[in-house]
Amino acid sequence: MSGGSTFSLKRFFLGKPIPSHLAHHERLSRVTGLAVLSSDALSSVAYATDFVLATLVVAGVGAFVYAIPISLIIASLLAIVAFSYRQTIHAYPTGGGAYIVAKENISDTAGLIAAASLLVDYTLTVAVSISAGVLAITSAFPNVHPYRVEICLAFLAILTIGNLRGIRESGRIFAVPTYFFVVSVMVLLAAGTYRFLTGAIVPVDLPLPPNAGHQPLTLFLLLTAFANGCTAMTGVEAVSNGVPAFRPPEAKNAASTLVTMASLAILMFIGITVLAHAYHVVPNPTESGISQLGRAIFGGPNLLYYLLQAGTTLILVLAANTAYADFPRLASIVSRDRYLPRQFMNQGDRLAFSNGILVLSVFAAVLITAFRGDTQSLLPLYMIGVFVSFTLSQAGMVIHWRRTREPGWRTNACINGFGAVVTGIVLIIVAVTKTMEGAWIVLLLIPVIVAVFKVTHGHYEHVASELTLKGYAPEARVHNTVLIPIGGLQRAVVDALRYAETLSDDVRAIYVDMNPASTELLRKEWETWGGRVKLVVLPSPFRSLMEPLLEYIDQASAEKTNDYVTVILPEFVPARWWQQLLHNQTSLLIKGALLFRPNIVVTSVPFHLSR
Amino acid sequence: MSGGSTFSLKRFFLGKPIPSHLAHHERLSRVTGLAVLSSDALSSVAYATDFVLATLVVAGVGAFVYAIPISLIIASLLAIVAFSYRQTIHAYPTGGGAYIVAKENISDTAGLIAAASLLVDYTLTVAVSISAGVLAITSAFPNVHPYRVEICLAFLAILTIGNLRGIRESGRIFAVPTYFFVVSVMVLLAAGTYRFLTGAIVPVDLPLPPNAGHQPLTLFLLLTAFANGCTAMTGVEAVSNGVPAFRPPEAKNAASTLVTMASLAILMFIGITVLAHAYHVVPNPTESGISQLGRAIFGGPNLLYYLLQAGTTLILVLAANTAYADFPRLASIVSRDRYLPRQFMNQGDRLAFSNGILVLSVFAAVLITAFRGDTQSLLPLYMIGVFVSFTLSQAGMVIHWRRTREPGWRTNACINGFGAVVTGIVLIIVAVTKTMEGAWIVLLLIPVIVAVFKVTHGHYEHVASELTLKGYAPEARVHNTVLIPIGGLQRAVVDALRYAETLSDDVRAIYVDMNPASTELLRKEWETWGGRVKLVVLPSPFRSLMEPLLEYIDQASAEKTNDYVTVILPEFVPARWWQQLLHNQTSLLIKGALLFRPNIVVTSVPFHLSR
Repeated sequence: MSGGSTFSLKRFFLGKPIPSHLAHHERLSRVTGLAVLSSDALSSVAYATDFVLATLVVAGVGAFVYAIPISLIIASLLAIVAFSYRQTIHAYPTGGGAYIVAKENISDTAGLIAAASLLVDYTLTVAVSISAGVLAITSAFPNVHPYRVEICLAFLAILTIGNLRGIRESGRIFAVPTYFFVVSVMVLLAAGTYRFLTGAIVPVDLPLPPNAGHQPLTLFLLLTAFANGCTAMTGVEAVSNGVPAFRPPEAKNAASTLVTMASLAILMFIGITVLAHAYHVVPNPTESGISQLGRAIFGGPNLLYYLLQAGTTLILVLAANTAYADFPRLASIVSRDRYLPRQFMNQGDRLAFSNGILVLSVFAAVLITAFRGDTQSLLPLYMIGVFVSFTLSQAGMVIHWRRTREPGWRTNACINGFGAVVTGIVLIIVAVTKTMEGAWIVLLLIPVIVAVFKVTHGHYEHVASELTLKGYAPEARVHNTVLIPIGGLQRAVVDALRYAETLSDDVRAIYVDMNPASTELLRKEWETWGGRVKLVVLPSPFRSLMEPLLEYIDQASAEKTNDYVTVILPEFVPARWWQQLLHNQTSLLIKGALLFRPNIVVTSVPFHLSR
Repeated sequence: MSGGSTFSLKRFFLGKPIPSHLAHHERLSRVTGLAVLSSDALSSVAYATDFVLATLVVAGVGAFVYAIPISLIIASLLAIVAFSYRQTIHAYPTGGGAYIVAKENISDTAGLIAAASLLVDYTLTVAVSISAGVLAITSAFPNVHPYRVEICLAFLAILTIGNLRGIRESGRIFAVPTYFFVVSVMVLLAAGTYRFLTGAIVPVDLPLPPNAGHQPLTLFLLLTAFANGCTAMTGVEAVSNGVPAFRPPEAKNAASTLVTMASLAILMFIGITVLAHAYHVVPNPTESGISQLGRAIFGGPNLLYYLLQAGTTLILVLAANTAYADFPRLASIVSRDRYLPRQFMNQGDRLAFSNGILVLSVFAAVLITAFRGDTQSLLPLYMIGVFVSFTLSQAGMVIHWRRTREPGWRTNACINGFGAVVTGIVLIIVAVTKTMEGAWIVLLLIPVIVAVFKVTHGHYEHVASELTLKGYAPEARVHNTVLIPIGGLQRAVVDALRYAETLSDDVRAIYVDMNPASTELLRKEWETWGGRVKLVVLPSPFRSLMEPLLEYIDQASAEKTNDYVTVILPEFVPARWWQQLLHNQTSLLIKGALLFRPNIVVTSVPFHLSR
């Protein structure tokens, strides 16, 4: 593959590069911003109600009535959290993710815990949203249910490539489905309410799951149902993390987008829950609640029903896109602070953070495959990360207000403080009720990620201290001993000899004597081709190539103290990849052996094979 | 890991290196030669009779009587082939494998077909022998039958390490079990015959397999049984391939070893087949025929029985060692002729051909795992390769005699011609009867391997023509343009600058301007640290690092026609492997991009991190 074709391939996946003075044209308007950043929050209404009902059903159908008060509590929490985040937008107009807020106001470690939680959260957003989106497909077409993992992975691939191509096109692609979903659900709610009020209800006709009514209705069960319903709150932080992606005035646009988003989410969540109760929706692993409502309200699988399912699938699969905006951005900020490898800081040609996108896709693919694309199994893992970052972020804001003491700081601190207490209580409820169902994985993972952050940071700090030029006085080295290990004479070797002659007066070719006849021949040919290069022949009593060679290189580097030693290796550059297997094996061995010897410079002189 | 510890690890697996003037001490005596090279041929009697009976049983117990004439025919074929190979030993005292004989006398392609067949054959020898050896264990201890694949792989690992350590120790290890097996079988035959003659027979008491008597006794069935019995002939070529491994006089020692081996194999094969009939042995997938005979003749599972099983296991597992002697040797010869990558020519420190050994082990492990360690499934694949090489080798010898016209060449040509015809007929019978049972894999594989040989050869020939010094006049280049891409100033960069100054008068550091403030700072620091190196600052309107850099390098290499361009990259050598992930990413990108540009030399100046 030539360098040129590498670049064309890259261009194909990434699109044309954009000069940096045009970068603000990539920014989001309110309309596209709502589509890109709120799909996560809005789409979670597609599974939150199901998740509540699936919990309550073990106490029998009678327990379903509790879904309505639970949804009202969750809706008010959502309003509180959104209000709380609205303050963050204004206080941190350059992007106030939980990481930055917790780090600046509480401590580095609090920031890192928030960052780890968010990275886990974003990964789960991708896995959960795609799985739930595919459930909307398999609800409408039950015979593709066995292929759900493959369909999930196909959507994941589309998202990955789309995001590698850049954020503006993402905005365009995603504006349509988000609004389409909102309209579909609104039509569903309107039609469902109208039928309910006119008494023309045909209830859903599905059998109860086998575990129905097997347990008493305990407080723990109600708390579990509440915790599960809190999945409706996920994604609410996306707007405040994405402030700099908006067009100016960034903070104002972001804040108004946040309010719109929260209002829509609350309306849809309460509406769906109430209608689910009215139409006797029952939890079912292969048909989602929205699908059941659609069938009942629109009267069977007709055009309106299929449009609703299509809208649900699209917003859910594309909700994952919120994470594709946030994960690479957070990874880049954490990497800038030297807590993650600096590869995550690379902005690709199209201002997209390619490495972050790829890492996110890989982990999401692992989750989807491991949990066989089952939303209900993935959800218990989801909320820990979300609520850890909610709580740390709100708590950080309280400290922020206490420190800045801006006009009205007390009110602001109270709002955020209330948010922190509320989300903290939800976090405890989630941890208590969900740990056994898989949340322990996340509880274990967050400290592990924080440890990785700290080890990485320690390493970079140490390297910086080793690299500082303060007080550095490199020893004066004027001479260069150039060594060329050779296995005979041919064009590639001769080219390397001629190159080496330009580097130093002291150039030596090293040949290991395996066979006296070949050595004699080489000495003869040397008269023609050797030039200014001295030929050193090493004996090898043990028929080993490497040992005499390395021994000689060690000796040569010990000869003088103020000398560089350069080892020159002729290297074939094959025309096709498989030819690599047929060459350069000895060069590789020598390079590997020299890697850990200090002060030896290795140079490859390429010889290009024509075919 | 330091270079030192790499070498200790190697020493652990390979043992101490041996100087080449001591190499003949590694040679084999007749006694050790028989043990090392004939275990394949001798051990095949452990499964050949079973394989014949398993075929005949579908025509009912009455068909078992045909096993005796079949075994007599096979025994005479074995004698003919051995006699035929004895001539090869004398004509090719330096090792007359089928590859060399067919290549020298018929054509290159015939030689390559023989080589491909033999490489496949050796791999199957390892897989079949180990599986059959483990069957001897599971016959005695049926409760370990579920773990047979794991046991097979454990034996494979022991063989691999043993062979990496060198051939003399192999001789020592394998002398005891080979003779132990021969003595065990002789005791079995003697005791069995004595009991038979004295009328004290207790027949084996096992139920017939479910497919018994389901088919009529057709000629095709008899031919299939015959083809299956020919597994007894496998391994007979090992001695003639291994002539140079013997002590002088090599040919004489090898020939007498071959005669001893053939006599023993014939005696044991006929003896076991006759006794199997006398003692009513029936084919059984979980108990071998020898195990059944041992129980019946020695009177149940007692010490003698366990010794017999142990001997069978040891010789079978170690028969695989014949392949470990022959596969790497053949690969090395083929590689010397440039039909295989030259890695196979590498003799390790201990004169063992490490790469060939490792490749053989990997393929054998794949076969054992794919066929779940079942000998009966592996056997149909086995014989094609063996008989292709037999036939080509004998046919090649006929042409050899016609050409040399030594005294008595007509007799010699007749003997080899008869061998060729006989083995050719067997080959056709095997191909006809076994293709559907799996032999098609081998019939497909042999031409594929031959194609790989030819492509490899073509490449090496082409490279040799590109590398020839005949008429080569390298253009005189006297100057060296040295370029150092930098991302800022720190110790590693300063070290690289100082090194570069020793190489040329024209040294330029290249910095891509991403941020005017940083660039200004760099220019200031340059006054202190720049030395004789010129600082070149490149603009980057697209915020891309690589594109301006590569463009500049292209320009620089176009500046003069008689100039070298050297790109120097400061490279971190981390103290721990994971630190590699945190560094050198840009260097890697640059190296990759420069790889396919002609005439650019890349030099890495190492900076060793202390921890």
